Amino acid sequence: MNIAAETLAATHLRRRADHLSPAAVEALNAALAARFGNRLVTSEAVRVQHGHTLTWVANAPPDAVIFAENTQDVVDAVRICAEHDAPIIPFGAGTSLEGHVNALHGGVSIDMSRMDRLLAVHAEDLDCVVEPGLHRIALNEQLRDTGLFFPIDPGADASIGGMTATRASGTNAVRYGTMKDNVLSLVAVTADGSIVRTASRAKKSSAGYDLTRLFVGSEGTLGIITEITLRLHGIPEAISAGHCPFKDVRSACDAVIATIQSGLPVARIELLDAMQVKACNNYSKLSLPETPMLFVEFHGTSAGVAEQSQRFGDIAAEFGGGPFVWATRPEERSRLWQARHDVYWASFTLRPGARLFATDVCVPISRLADCVEATQRDIAETGLVAPIVGHVGDGNFHVSPLVDMDDPADVARAEAFSSRLVRRALAMDGTCTGEHGVGQKKIPYVEEEYPAATLDLMRRIKQAFDPANLLNPGKILRQ
Amino acid sequence: MNIAAETLAATHLRRRADHLSPAAVEALNAALAARFGNRLVTSEAVRVQHGHTLTWVANAPPDAVIFAENTQDVVDAVRICAEHDAPIIPFGAGTSLEGHVNALHGGVSIDMSRMDRLLAVHAEDLDCVVEPGLHRIALNEQLRDTGLFFPIDPGADASIGGMTATRASGTNAVRYGTMKDNVLSLVAVTADGSIVRTASRAKKSSAGYDLTRLFVGSEGTLGIITEITLRLHGIPEAISAGHCPFKDVRSACDAVIATIQSGLPVARIELLDAMQVKACNNYSKLSLPETPMLFVEFHGTSAGVAEQSQRFGDIAAEFGGGPFVWATRPEERSRLWQARHDVYWASFTLRPGARLFATDVCVPISRLADCVEATQRDIAETGLVAPIVGHVGDGNFHVSPLVDMDDPADVARAEAFSSRLVRRALAMDGTCTGEHGVGQKKIPYVEEEYPAATLDLMRRIKQAFDPANLLNPGKILRQ
Repeated sequence: MNIAAETLAATHLRRRADHLSPAAVEALNAALAARFGNRLVTSEAVRVQHGHTLTWVANAPPDAVIFAENTQDVVDAVRICAEHDAPIIPFGAGTSLEGHVNALHGGVSIDMSRMDRLLAVHAEDLDCVVEPGLHRIALNEQLRDTGLFFPIDPGADASIGGMTATRASGTNAVRYGTMKDNVLSLVAVTADGSIVRTASRAKKSSAGYDLTRLFVGSEGTLGIITEITLRLHGIPEAISAGHCPFKDVRSACDAVIATIQSGLPVARIELLDAMQVKACNNYSKLSLPETPMLFVEFHGTSAGVAEQSQRFGDIAAEFGGGPFVWATRPEERSRLWQARHDVYWASFTLRPGARLFATDVCVPISRLADCVEATQRDIAETGLVAPIVGHVGDGNFHVSPLVDMDDPADVARAEAFSSRLVRRALAMDGTCTGEHGVGQKKIPYVEEEYPAATLDLMRRIKQAFDPANLLNPGKILRQ
Repeated sequence: MNIAAETLAATHLRRRADHLSPAAVEALNAALAARFGNRLVTSEAVRVQHGHTLTWVANAPPDAVIFAENTQDVVDAVRICAEHDAPIIPFGAGTSLEGHVNALHGGVSIDMSRMDRLLAVHAEDLDCVVEPGLHRIALNEQLRDTGLFFPIDPGADASIGGMTATRASGTNAVRYGTMKDNVLSLVAVTADGSIVRTASRAKKSSAGYDLTRLFVGSEGTLGIITEITLRLHGIPEAISAGHCPFKDVRSACDAVIATIQSGLPVARIELLDAMQVKACNNYSKLSLPETPMLFVEFHGTSAGVAEQSQRFGDIAAEFGGGPFVWATRPEERSRLWQARHDVYWASFTLRPGARLFATDVCVPISRLADCVEATQRDIAETGLVAPIVGHVGDGNFHVSPLVDMDDPADVARAEAFSSRLVRRALAMDGTCTGEHGVGQKKIPYVEEEYPAATLDLMRRIKQAFDPANLLNPGKILRQ
């Protein structure tokens, strides 16, 4: 046995050409048309719409778009693509921030939006089965009568398939976990057209390798997810929410650490820096004090949330926070959290006409104040317009430089800032992406985050699952 | 590209000979002795001790035992074994129930018991870093002054490395999750002697494939875990515990479903059937009513646990449960839960001299009453002595037939019963193992649980990580 040769063989993924040749695209599209009829679309407008459109990452459209209606459609699309050696990119809601849906090497975008059914609700088991194209808000609307809800809430109204593929989270993760914790099982179509079910509906299992968690966060590079079994949670009997200003980011972070250490089961605890508060005031017509603020929410019984709120108020006061304002009425609470969810759009009010540069570091919470403060100094020195919002209970925060895309110097400044931010987080034993995923642009940082031997194992997995590099090539790992 | 050939190549693991030849063992041991001196032990007593010793599974001793003291020892042991094409089996506390540590093809057991240090506690981040040989009770003793604890509690005082490798859980999983939810990151030595760190200390990350979860539950077949970063939790301010009899298993299960659906954050909720209660009365000198019982525990603030206890009492009464007895004093609570933890030993009082046959199915909770009732009928019809205890909040339960190992008919009866139990659980969309792992004996059931394409992906992973099949061969997957 030659170990060195094995290692070497495993560390290189098959390189793909930049694009298929025109003749190859023509043959591919003819085969797809024969199977999918008018569910194959090749118009430029639709192709561009299926590339990246949200942040400043350049659009790279696929050669064709297929609208899948069931798992067999996906199997057949994968088989046809494999026969034509054409890349395959699954498309959910298109709300990815990192260029995940860009067709960097051409190929076919499989649009899952028509696979949007809630297939089953098992209320006694607190789970449900969905198709990947179902959006999170629509899911919760359909669940409402059951008394259950699905807690994961990225900023956008993303599809459940996309959220699964990027290991998404959001404001509720501090209490309810991320997609990794809320996907019980899934079905995926692999590169050879096989249909794989990863697990039963049992709440836990020790039966072999955890394929569920391997597909969660795999960004379409290991298989195309066609069905997801999700954990659900009881809609809390009572919710209390509030906001609390602090004199600086450090005291806000210290209050968060004390809250979590004390075991208070906070459901949401979000940090907005002064610039982000200003943007929210602009966009959502609020009149919050423009200083670092925590938005918090507690879930439980009436007596429970009253007690938790009281305790949190005491902790915040210990760290100089206050006055602490509670939104007791549901409308008031919704308005507050709607403002939090709208920070993406609110940020544009700070620099109209600019595009947003997404960042997403996550550090151990003990280092959060250090990381945010150093980043604020960096922003001031660089002269960026860059508000900060953070899922501070998890140590995850987003700085969103607003960039003039017509000014190469401005773009370069934002890119350099983003690199420094990631390296700062990595030096604090953090990660380059807490919830957005790797997509295209984070590949160099993933290479800095992990030791070579770890990257080697990731490449071995990709190679074992997709030796021809058909599935979303050019994402997560360098070819 | 030939997809069929790729698939075929991936589905077969390298087969190993039953054992190394005497000459090969001699050469292997000479190389190990040169590196490890008297930390290599080849005496029969020690070798037998490092095979399976706990349940009725036959002991299969390794050819040699190495006592590792650090990660470099593990790297060197793996390299020497690879050079001699010798299997490598990591050994923690030896409390596995499924023969995980048996050396089915000979080779070297790497005993991790000397790697038992708590390397770091990050109290602000609610995490700690441990070596794999540290036992869970010792960890909690060392953590006590920090106000934090590690909640996962399999029946035995297992090592953290073994718990990680088998994806263990226990009575607290309904609230705190399993090892999959409580390992933040780990370090493993792979088959080529590389040292792999799977993740940073950030609470969440979307940076590439989830190698952490892939190693959790991999039973030593993908790498040897040498360091684990664990999530910790605040020791609850108040704990309340109690027990409640029910007229039958179904009403107890229905009370559990209603409790969980109502969102009560129960920390533990355990079902004991009448026979198991009898065993506990025998062994732990209790005088519980010999009828199905729920043992419950709530964690929170004083007011919170009082409210939760009250609510649970109301729910239990709705389903005919009661009287509901609360253990208010800590000694009383400890005695109750010690009895629960001692069910393994208590079971032997039902049939002195017998060995225990471990089972571990887990079903969606809506099917739990059906599954337990059908199993009780099966026990009665088969004439087995087989108490039942369940982590009923997760749908996981253990039936423990007591078997006379000298009576082949008795063994065959227990094996046939176990097969029927697993098939009953699989038919209810459950799993053959909720927390014990696959080891040797569950391999045929794993093959029934998953579709062929799923098993194929698992084999691809094993082959990609360990092409020579050096790491704990003959476990999880058929060769």
